[in-house]
Amino acid sequence: MECNINNLETKSCSGMSQFLKVKTVDEVLSILEMIRPLSTEPVSLDRACGRRLASEIIAGEPAPHFIRATMDGYAVRARDTFGASESLPALLQRSGEVVMGEAPEIEVAPGRAVEISTGGMLPEGSDAVVMVEYTSMLDDTTIEITKPAAPGENVLKTGEDMAPGEVLLRKGALLRPQDIGVLASLGRVEVEVFRVARVALISTGDEIVPIETLPLPPAKIRDINMFSLAAEIKSADAQVGMRKRVSDRIEDLISVCREALVDHDVIVLSGGSSAGARDYTARVLAGLPESELLVHGVAIKPGKPTIFGRAGGALFWGLPGQPVSALITCRVFVLPSLRKLQGGMGIELAQARSIMAVLNRQVPSVHGRTDYVPVSLSRGSGGTTEASPVFGKSGAIGILARADGYVVIPIHVEGLDAGTEIQVHPF
Amino acid sequence: MECNINNLETKSCSGMSQFLKVKTVDEVLSILEMIRPLSTEPVSLDRACGRRLASEIIAGEPAPHFIRATMDGYAVRARDTFGASESLPALLQRSGEVVMGEAPEIEVAPGRAVEISTGGMLPEGSDAVVMVEYTSMLDDTTIEITKPAAPGENVLKTGEDMAPGEVLLRKGALLRPQDIGVLASLGRVEVEVFRVARVALISTGDEIVPIETLPLPPAKIRDINMFSLAAEIKSADAQVGMRKRVSDRIEDLISVCREALVDHDVIVLSGGSSAGARDYTARVLAGLPESELLVHGVAIKPGKPTIFGRAGGALFWGLPGQPVSALITCRVFVLPSLRKLQGGMGIELAQARSIMAVLNRQVPSVHGRTDYVPVSLSRGSGGTTEASPVFGKSGAIGILARADGYVVIPIHVEGLDAGTEIQVHPF
Repeated sequence: MECNINNLETKSCSGMSQFLKVKTVDEVLSILEMIRPLSTEPVSLDRACGRRLASEIIAGEPAPHFIRATMDGYAVRARDTFGASESLPALLQRSGEVVMGEAPEIEVAPGRAVEISTGGMLPEGSDAVVMVEYTSMLDDTTIEITKPAAPGENVLKTGEDMAPGEVLLRKGALLRPQDIGVLASLGRVEVEVFRVARVALISTGDEIVPIETLPLPPAKIRDINMFSLAAEIKSADAQVGMRKRVSDRIEDLISVCREALVDHDVIVLSGGSSAGARDYTARVLAGLPESELLVHGVAIKPGKPTIFGRAGGALFWGLPGQPVSALITCRVFVLPSLRKLQGGMGIELAQARSIMAVLNRQVPSVHGRTDYVPVSLSRGSGGTTEASPVFGKSGAIGILARADGYVVIPIHVEGLDAGTEIQVHPF
Repeated sequence: MECNINNLETKSCSGMSQFLKVKTVDEVLSILEMIRPLSTEPVSLDRACGRRLASEIIAGEPAPHFIRATMDGYAVRARDTFGASESLPALLQRSGEVVMGEAPEIEVAPGRAVEISTGGMLPEGSDAVVMVEYTSMLDDTTIEITKPAAPGENVLKTGEDMAPGEVLLRKGALLRPQDIGVLASLGRVEVEVFRVARVALISTGDEIVPIETLPLPPAKIRDINMFSLAAEIKSADAQVGMRKRVSDRIEDLISVCREALVDHDVIVLSGGSSAGARDYTARVLAGLPESELLVHGVAIKPGKPTIFGRAGGALFWGLPGQPVSALITCRVFVLPSLRKLQGGMGIELAQARSIMAVLNRQVPSVHGRTDYVPVSLSRGSGGTTEASPVFGKSGAIGILARADGYVVIPIHVEGLDAGTEIQVHPF
């Protein structure tokens, strides 16, 4: 599909008008695939880790750019060592030493050997390095060599590591420490990356009070999501801008969201999106400029009332107010949308990191719904990792402290038996 | 063992004097287990994610602190619904509504039902919530109920989620987004955590030049480690302070390290630690105050010349200069040591996150040495994840760009066959 949802020209996308039925997880993820990345910006290399490349990185110069020793020993002409053995060593004359970091002026003439350290530049005439372990000094200048070296042995040739024109890193690659190393090796002091998403975090609900409220009045709960979702969003290397707690009044919510649209790429509104009388979130979205509702309910548990749409060029998420549901829907949907905005190429790989474990009791589920079940991990008797479901009533928060991750029960599976080997996604 | 290696009183530890033989990975990790955490400090909750708790967190008040509805529907006396069915519904009188965030003044008398939303506080007299799906209004005040509710159904009782005195988070726990949520629920605006380690990063080697050097003179290489190791150290939530490139002269290295000792917890010196003539690193350590060499060489590939010790109350690491070796030894040894300094309780769990994959070709290894083999991952024909070893000569840097992770070939295993299922540790 060619349309991009954070782009005003997308109203014409086919199939985009009928989004009001509950969607499956896969349907939501394929909608997220259409998210277009933000603009790009240069960052200095020491701040680039965790960012995504705006263009591919191609090797310019050969690496190494000189013939380099990969072992400590002697630079030799390989043919001078042919046939050498413990019983019949080759004898060579030592003629000097390669100084690290300097192009050697010395040349290795036939029958000669020049001392060299790992990383040193091979002198003219030599084509191999004999490891120091296979040599010994007979006198001040005579070296005994007990093992032959093949041409090119213990040597890294010019361009053998990275050839000019080779694609080293792809557009959209998440820069890891070793990629930073590759960029350093190319002399890139600055690199063009996708901008990070700036997220406005809004909590709503008349029962929500600031976390410092002490003692907690009856019927109130503290604003957990403002902190847990902020931490989650920052874990995706996105930036949290506005953080506001707003009453359940629709005009107040619309007004705060309009304010957020000025300088945020994403609005995450938690609370107020249950299917009941207080289903304000969809109406809030409708009250924003250039808005479109793309997802209204997802066939998952927890998190069914999740809402997704766009408004004024930004993405708009409505998450359930219940903290466990908010955190899981953030992990499953909001973070992939942030990764797409920040230049990530695909949705699925985000879930690649997981821990294999054996379920230690049965977990029921319902056909037609994807279940995300919190589990705690422990070491089983046979050294296996065991996953225990952390059951808790809807609305419980303690689950958050007790769970190490969650398992996914796919939409067409009715529960999992004890003993099943499963992937645990670390929280 | 009771001794702590970043502590001056540890010289008396038994077995601490003979550290000069090459050690196995497990021996090194058990030495790291003795590292004592740094001091603690308070941080505000919105900056606490990724830090480790300095003390356990215990629930003070019950959660919830009021009886709460977990579904939208009607608060009722359960017994008024007993026996209700589609064919013989129970009829109740609607008497008002619970306002979210307020303690209801209304009482549920026998035969009455009060409308309530998820998260609302149950009125006096009621002991269950009938889901709205099982109700319909017959007229303005009469509600038909088609399914009985058991006492406590769709209700979270006071303290049912978290009981006062319950240990919610343990000392040393790494604070994840959901733990931040738990702390928010307790009203903790500030939390006591272990201080992060401040690391001095020093590169040495006469062949090393600043990365901006262009064109690269013959025999020189750019200072890759200064950037890749810094990114790696920051990924462990530690802080990089001093960053210096120093010549291969031992007096210069000692002088820079002494300077670093003033306000750093760890010195990471890369380069200059090969077993050859330029084995300066151990001599640098020996030249520092109150120093002790604890590890001089490890039976791994790559990374055999790794050095570990302590000096002036700080940890001291000497890593190989070769960028791939430096990165792998940093991952395998330095990061666990940072986690211990920052309050982490065990070494092993750090390696828990891995991806299961099938090796698609044979990997040779040598008995008596732990091998860390870089691999790239791809999707195999049957939907499995395949790991391909990224072979490259010692000294090659391009490996860094091509590998997705590494596999560990244990010390007593002589290579792995193609088709072996293995754990890949993401880089």
